[in-house]
Amino acid sequence: MSQILLTPGPVPLHPEVIRILAQPMIHHRTPAFDEILSSCLQKLPKIFGTREKVFMHSSTGSGGMESVLVNVLSPGDKVLAIVSGKFGERWAEMAKTFGMQVDILNVNWGEAVTEEQVQNRLLTHTYRAVLCQACETSTAVLHPIRELGELIAKLPETLFLVDGITAVGAADLPMDLFHIDGLVAGSQKALMLPTGLSFVSFSQKAQKYFATATCPRFYFDIRKEQKANTGGETFYSSNVLLVRALDWVLNFIEQQGLKTFLNTVQRRSVMTHHFLSLAGLRSYSKNPSPSLTAIVLPENSPGVEMRKHLEDKYSVVVMGGQDQLKGKILRIGHMGYIQDSDMQSFFEALMKTFLDFKIAGWTEDKMKTIVEQMRNWCQKNS
Amino acid sequence: MSQILLTPGPVPLHPEVIRILAQPMIHHRTPAFDEILSSCLQKLPKIFGTREKVFMHSSTGSGGMESVLVNVLSPGDKVLAIVSGKFGERWAEMAKTFGMQVDILNVNWGEAVTEEQVQNRLLTHTYRAVLCQACETSTAVLHPIRELGELIAKLPETLFLVDGITAVGAADLPMDLFHIDGLVAGSQKALMLPTGLSFVSFSQKAQKYFATATCPRFYFDIRKEQKANTGGETFYSSNVLLVRALDWVLNFIEQQGLKTFLNTVQRRSVMTHHFLSLAGLRSYSKNPSPSLTAIVLPENSPGVEMRKHLEDKYSVVVMGGQDQLKGKILRIGHMGYIQDSDMQSFFEALMKTFLDFKIAGWTEDKMKTIVEQMRNWCQKNS
Repeated sequence: MSQILLTPGPVPLHPEVIRILAQPMIHHRTPAFDEILSSCLQKLPKIFGTREKVFMHSSTGSGGMESVLVNVLSPGDKVLAIVSGKFGERWAEMAKTFGMQVDILNVNWGEAVTEEQVQNRLLTHTYRAVLCQACETSTAVLHPIRELGELIAKLPETLFLVDGITAVGAADLPMDLFHIDGLVAGSQKALMLPTGLSFVSFSQKAQKYFATATCPRFYFDIRKEQKANTGGETFYSSNVLLVRALDWVLNFIEQQGLKTFLNTVQRRSVMTHHFLSLAGLRSYSKNPSPSLTAIVLPENSPGVEMRKHLEDKYSVVVMGGQDQLKGKILRIGHMGYIQDSDMQSFFEALMKTFLDFKIAGWTEDKMKTIVEQMRNWCQKNS
Repeated sequence: MSQILLTPGPVPLHPEVIRILAQPMIHHRTPAFDEILSSCLQKLPKIFGTREKVFMHSSTGSGGMESVLVNVLSPGDKVLAIVSGKFGERWAEMAKTFGMQVDILNVNWGEAVTEEQVQNRLLTHTYRAVLCQACETSTAVLHPIRELGELIAKLPETLFLVDGITAVGAADLPMDLFHIDGLVAGSQKALMLPTGLSFVSFSQKAQKYFATATCPRFYFDIRKEQKANTGGETFYSSNVLLVRALDWVLNFIEQQGLKTFLNTVQRRSVMTHHFLSLAGLRSYSKNPSPSLTAIVLPENSPGVEMRKHLEDKYSVVVMGGQDQLKGKILRIGHMGYIQDSDMQSFFEALMKTFLDFKIAGWTEDKMKTIVEQMRNWCQKNS
């Protein structure tokens, strides 16, 4: 039975990616692979919006988050961690683990941090770095990265480190223009690949700390990759399978232009918010990211069971909420190889689930009307 | 043009693995994936020969090497690193990077360390750990892990940490029986998968250091995986693509039995040594690993060009030597989905290369005779 995968990573794969994943294995120290790697290393900076180099690690996104910290920070460094959900918590905990003095700027879940909140901290404290998610995946919030970047750029000794795992390739996030000093992305998000690669890049301002940062690091030591990449290779065994597919994805993005590619993701977000309004539902995030939407379930819904029901009965896989949001929201991703029909099927299945669970106010007729309205929207906006 | 891949990792993939790599993406927090993960976590200890749990990281083998160190050692710990090639050097450097006091036991390249060499060090020094490759991939040497394990097991405060990346699933290396305290394996070797997963396991003796080891660690912190695995999940996004294929490989091994699977690899090593004797060539390693063979090229051969020639003209990809062995040896792997015909094709191509490069003593007739003898060996030993 074929499932509809609508999670904020991993995402549905393009048929061409699947075809490339099924190619015979080749060795990574060969001219054939060198060419592919070189093509990727040349194209990745365009996706990051930077003149700097982008490096790859064979790891999940969290490995990339670790890389961004350990390559430019030292134990004892004072950092400000903006925490607005699960991934903010993780990054703050990571920084503590590596011996940094971490001040937490807690932001209400569902809200974006404000310039003012950050400015207040920066006026009274001196930080070596500010950590922020571009998109906090647990709440679907997009933070004002451009504005924060402008603030932090004024401080010569403070780095702006951004977790762009659920944002790079989905939201407009040009690293150089937004004054981002360290940016991380992951393969299983907007880059439409399976999990297994993370990507990191550092501004000139950040790179000068490569030599002085005293966090012990080996696997994630970017200096090794720098040297190896210069010679056209990766330092460790290359992730041949994903890098080959990455090359196709980067070409795919280049052919249509990054802006068009971002618009495709953005359009699914707009579509989702339109469908929500048709259904009288609302988004949890007060500043929604284009990469995913967190849908608030009708009050007193048995959210955990409903998510499972969607999967078991209607073969639609979406994510629920975590921690304080458990059972209260559903999170659907807008990245990857998604068809309009997948989005419509999800919403129809969601409404059927409301009927199955006898949620107040839901009738077969209401559902049919909305299904019709969704179809019309998709036709008009195709 | 189809290539023959005969390197010591990555290795040729089984057609069934390729088929599984091309399946649609599924999410890792779903019952379908949980079942696959649980099956893998249950079967991996059999391959490791341990009653302990085996953990996975999304990383290359080197990430697993880091994991084995940072989870049980602390800065300042005195360790003995047995260095007999590139990977021994890497592990020693890694330990230094994390602040350990590293004593090097240098072993001549091509030779295995002896019990006596290690015993001498252990009599005069107290080490928290001894680091050794089971197979040193750069020289194709197999070290006497069982004997070293017995020595070290007598020391209550010394851990025996073994890099089994090119050995687990290829050489007989039962972790518990050989008194190994930390063992690492990689996906792209005997486990016949693409690069991207590493596997680690720790003895009870080692596990007690999880709580006290002070190496800062987050991505490779095994305590996080321990907790997540207990709940049937991985801590980070699971490497769905490779874990699904791993499950098939582990079933494949289980169905035939580990011993039979190891014999398949061993047989290719025996075949290679037989072919070498037919051709009047010799193996570089004085104690060859079953997982790969390092072939000494005829004296004064332009080894680097010959390796390239094999690839360009005959479409056979093998590895050359590194550092002091550059241009002097060829390394061919015996792991993965290899046919007898691949081995014969390589040797035929190698002899043709000798002819192409006018290596003394090589004639068309001599080659034809050996090709015939190889064919006979394969028929008799199929």
